[in-house]
Amino acid sequence: MTSEETAPGSIRPGGRTARVREAVLRAAGDLLAERGFAELDLAEVAAHAAVGKTTVYRRWGSATGLVTDLLVDMAEQSVARADTGSLLGDLTANARLVARTLTDPRQGRLFRAVIAAATCDEAAAAALRRFYDVRLTEWSPCVSAAVARGEAPEGTDPRAVLSAVSAPLYYRLLASGDPIDETVADTAARAAFDAVRAGTLVRNAAES
Amino acid sequence: MTSEETAPGSIRPGGRTARVREAVLRAAGDLLAERGFAELDLAEVAAHAAVGKTTVYRRWGSATGLVTDLLVDMAEQSVARADTGSLLGDLTANARLVARTLTDPRQGRLFRAVIAAATCDEAAAAALRRFYDVRLTEWSPCVSAAVARGEAPEGTDPRAVLSAVSAPLYYRLLASGDPIDETVADTAARAAFDAVRAGTLVRNAAES
Repeated sequence: MTSEETAPGSIRPGGRTARVREAVLRAAGDLLAERGFAELDLAEVAAHAAVGKTTVYRRWGSATGLVTDLLVDMAEQSVARADTGSLLGDLTANARLVARTLTDPRQGRLFRAVIAAATCDEAAAAALRRFYDVRLTEWSPCVSAAVARGEAPEGTDPRAVLSAVSAPLYYRLLASGDPIDETVADTAARAAFDAVRAGTLVRNAAES
Repeated sequence: MTSEETAPGSIRPGGRTARVREAVLRAAGDLLAERGFAELDLAEVAAHAAVGKTTVYRRWGSATGLVTDLLVDMAEQSVARADTGSLLGDLTANARLVARTLTDPRQGRLFRAVIAAATCDEAAAAALRRFYDVRLTEWSPCVSAAVARGEAPEGTDPRAVLSAVSAPLYYRLLASGDPIDETVADTAARAAFDAVRAGTLVRNAAES
């Protein structure tokens, strides 16, 4: 950041700094989705964003810096948790949201690219862990509300439940390649719900 | 392959061709685990394997060719399915095997590298899908035996069950970064078992 940008009162929400960040992260996301992390080039991102190359190098520094900030931005734009009044309803809403995200042409490729980046870059891996932490925390009240309603056993671990909902969809995206659709999402939600009802995802049972 | 290698009777199991392949795939796996797919260089693989560069280029052609053949080899070395006499026992054995593989320093990094390769390369993605196909097929009799014993509902989908066992472990490895241990593996097996018992993983319910 230049001293002008950091001077008190010079940054307003939606101001130049915010507009530059939005344009750069949009371009970085587009290029990541199109070609993957290995091909992410800061000069190309700057050109696509119509922003000076120097600005991009100064502010983000590297491809990893871009991926890290993109994940911060994705976490900020995370969809608020559902509140359908039932645990199965909330978990199904969560599973369908994840399924829609992973099957969206741009978003699905973008997730694969940032996950690939995280496999070979520790800073990107830390940013990815923070991203999932935000998502899992945002949706945790679905599980605590279910416990309060008596729908789930006392001590059910929200993070284990929400991970159980997402996991089969990510396994299809990244490993088996089996297709993802709404039926698959609904099954993932119901399987997690079954495990909750059986008491398998109670904190002591779910963690070492 | 040279004509000499393809001449009838010239290839014996454990012969030169097999030894070269073993050395090259071992070196490719070591380098992938160490540095990831983006850095995989055929000349370096040849040097590490003490095999002529020309042989490696002629036989495998590209980094993708190496990853593809490595996945074929990994599928061939796939551990035989468990037969403990109970579905929960078999699923627990499967989950612990996956957990041990993913937490093994070399194997865990190798899996992350081939999965990263598959996100940006269609041939590697196809090889990865075949690899999981072999693994899921190898372990499917655990589920059909459970159906025959009356432990699982008629029509339970073996692939859905085994995917459900592996998925939470892969989600931790690739997305949330949460640690993987034996307790986590046992919980993954039990959660899949709960879903089986509830009838959620019956074929019609599990597939669109």
